[in-house]
Amino acid sequence: MHVLALTKPDGRALTLYAQAPLQGIADAPSPFQEPLGRSPHLRRHPLRGEWITYAAYRQDRTFLPPPEYNPLAVTVDPRLPTELPQGNWDIAVFDNRFPSLSLDADEVPESIVDTAPGTGKCEVVVFAQDRLTSLSRLPVAHIDLLLQVWADRTAELGAIDSIHYVLPFENRGAEVGVTLHHPHGQIYAYPTVPPVPARMQEIASAHYEANGRGVLQDHIAKEIEDGQRILYLGEHAVAFVPAAARYPYEVWIATIAPVATFCDLDEAQRVDLARALKTVLMKYDALWDRPFPYLMAWYQAPTDGRPHPESHLHAEIYPPYRTRDRLKYLAGTEIAAGWFAMDALPEDKAQELQRIDVDIDS
Amino acid sequence: MHVLALTKPDGRALTLYAQAPLQGIADAPSPFQEPLGRSPHLRRHPLRGEWITYAAYRQDRTFLPPPEYNPLAVTVDPRLPTELPQGNWDIAVFDNRFPSLSLDADEVPESIVDTAPGTGKCEVVVFAQDRLTSLSRLPVAHIDLLLQVWADRTAELGAIDSIHYVLPFENRGAEVGVTLHHPHGQIYAYPTVPPVPARMQEIASAHYEANGRGVLQDHIAKEIEDGQRILYLGEHAVAFVPAAARYPYEVWIATIAPVATFCDLDEAQRVDLARALKTVLMKYDALWDRPFPYLMAWYQAPTDGRPHPESHLHAEIYPPYRTRDRLKYLAGTEIAAGWFAMDALPEDKAQELQRIDVDIDS
Repeated sequence: MHVLALTKPDGRALTLYAQAPLQGIADAPSPFQEPLGRSPHLRRHPLRGEWITYAAYRQDRTFLPPPEYNPLAVTVDPRLPTELPQGNWDIAVFDNRFPSLSLDADEVPESIVDTAPGTGKCEVVVFAQDRLTSLSRLPVAHIDLLLQVWADRTAELGAIDSIHYVLPFENRGAEVGVTLHHPHGQIYAYPTVPPVPARMQEIASAHYEANGRGVLQDHIAKEIEDGQRILYLGEHAVAFVPAAARYPYEVWIATIAPVATFCDLDEAQRVDLARALKTVLMKYDALWDRPFPYLMAWYQAPTDGRPHPESHLHAEIYPPYRTRDRLKYLAGTEIAAGWFAMDALPEDKAQELQRIDVDIDS
Repeated sequence: MHVLALTKPDGRALTLYAQAPLQGIADAPSPFQEPLGRSPHLRRHPLRGEWITYAAYRQDRTFLPPPEYNPLAVTVDPRLPTELPQGNWDIAVFDNRFPSLSLDADEVPESIVDTAPGTGKCEVVVFAQDRLTSLSRLPVAHIDLLLQVWADRTAELGAIDSIHYVLPFENRGAEVGVTLHHPHGQIYAYPTVPPVPARMQEIASAHYEANGRGVLQDHIAKEIEDGQRILYLGEHAVAFVPAAARYPYEVWIATIAPVATFCDLDEAQRVDLARALKTVLMKYDALWDRPFPYLMAWYQAPTDGRPHPESHLHAEIYPPYRTRDRLKYLAGTEIAAGWFAMDALPEDKAQELQRIDVDIDS
């Protein structure tokens, strides 16, 4: 992996990653020239005990681009700068101009609830230069590079004292609110372990203490033995519709042996994980012969400086469709109670995806 | 309140409620004549420890009504029976034909995760006979009747040993997945306290133990003293945009003094709560001069047979819009991390709603 770290005119970081040595890279452009005062703040929900981020300046996006303007394309006309320079980079990561969390956060308003600065970092990860491609269509080696990029970001962000959790994710498709269709994901780096991974850590820790093994490690062993819902099984990585899926086409992807974070993957594991991911995403797109929307999140160990033998890096993918034409809306029971209701059995949905043959090496 | 309990031809319960004595009520109709085998099951999520309901028969809705058929209208043509009879009822409650939870649940499939019968109950609450009205447009006395209906259902469902939590909610609008626009809500009765109220109970209990007062009681006192986000303040009830709102137009409605469940409301509290609710819903509809979609959930004490001095009945309303034209999608950080990010300050959204004058008694 080749890496080049640059700084944009407005002070934001840009890091370029490539399989080949980087050369002939222009200066880092930016659609914005002035530094932005970024001071999101947190308020604590009194009944849930969760932090919520407020970044009111996100409303003031005064930049009004022409309709065809794509900020994630490389800059061709310097009078219309985008976020990215020309050159032979494969993947790019830059600071979100309108972050929900920022290392510069320092202002905290008076409030009747607990408050704190919105410390953290929000990064945009551009998966490729071609706006018409997608993660599913990129070669395995390119996806493998993305896993290395996520490792690099986890290492860099996790090393910051005030960052305790690094979450890479991708929202794909208008159905999940995406307006910018150039293939990209995001990384949120949080000042504390957020509620969902915190709950998962609690359960994983209790299981590890009681059994000396990881809860996901044990679950994966059972999924492989059962075999009913497996979508990919390699030497080091596995993908399956989990027996307790909360979304109709939910899929988990993981190494078979527990690995705490992206940084702990060895090359064989990483390549197999890339193959598992490409397999699942190709099956998704082939299912209805159209781009398949989803939210994909990668859970890993907290970066709080403590060892986490209970953690097991894995992706959970939540697609919004329950059938070709019907969205699964999260409503009363899911949102208000946290109790998911499913019309479809995971075994049936797994079968639909198993039936689809894909060739990830073509 | 006048009550009439009936049974449908397929065995489901129907209860009619009215302000005036009920008379001339026809037999309980049903679009379905055969009893339905209802056996949802639960599976426990290994990483989250949460139950998920699977009700695969919900997919087999073979009944194909004509396009203008409204199952929540009263039956006019007996050859095309709906869910409801003619007569002078104001509010009706009946068993969902395709429930996610059922007291008849008894089958549990083999699985690699923990399983249990999907014990519980799912009821439909029809707010009025007029399909063109809405909760916001019903008179205060009718909304007061609905609060009595919710109390009656809480008492009846809560008295069942296997029911530990009763959650009335309304999903309103196509934006939150509603396809049937006749004004109605639902009640889910769960076999255990679901994850979200369970977490809230934990925090409320800790606060009560430490302070001898309710956490919401204390928060309400601060909201009233602060005054910035108040939308309604009566002698017994209050409505406000909470200081730690997670949705741009989120509103909470509660009695000022803690009341554990709907059953514990006295008449003065109940009427004031109805006035607060109508005020908020009228403001919502007036904001953009169109029906305002939302999810409204009413949290109350568990019905687990234990005293709950820490509980405080209240509604939380989550609208899906962040501006007139823009939906707030729950994506990466909200869904995957449980960490909400807001562009708008609660104080600003409260001001928008405060500016709107409504006359709830007209």
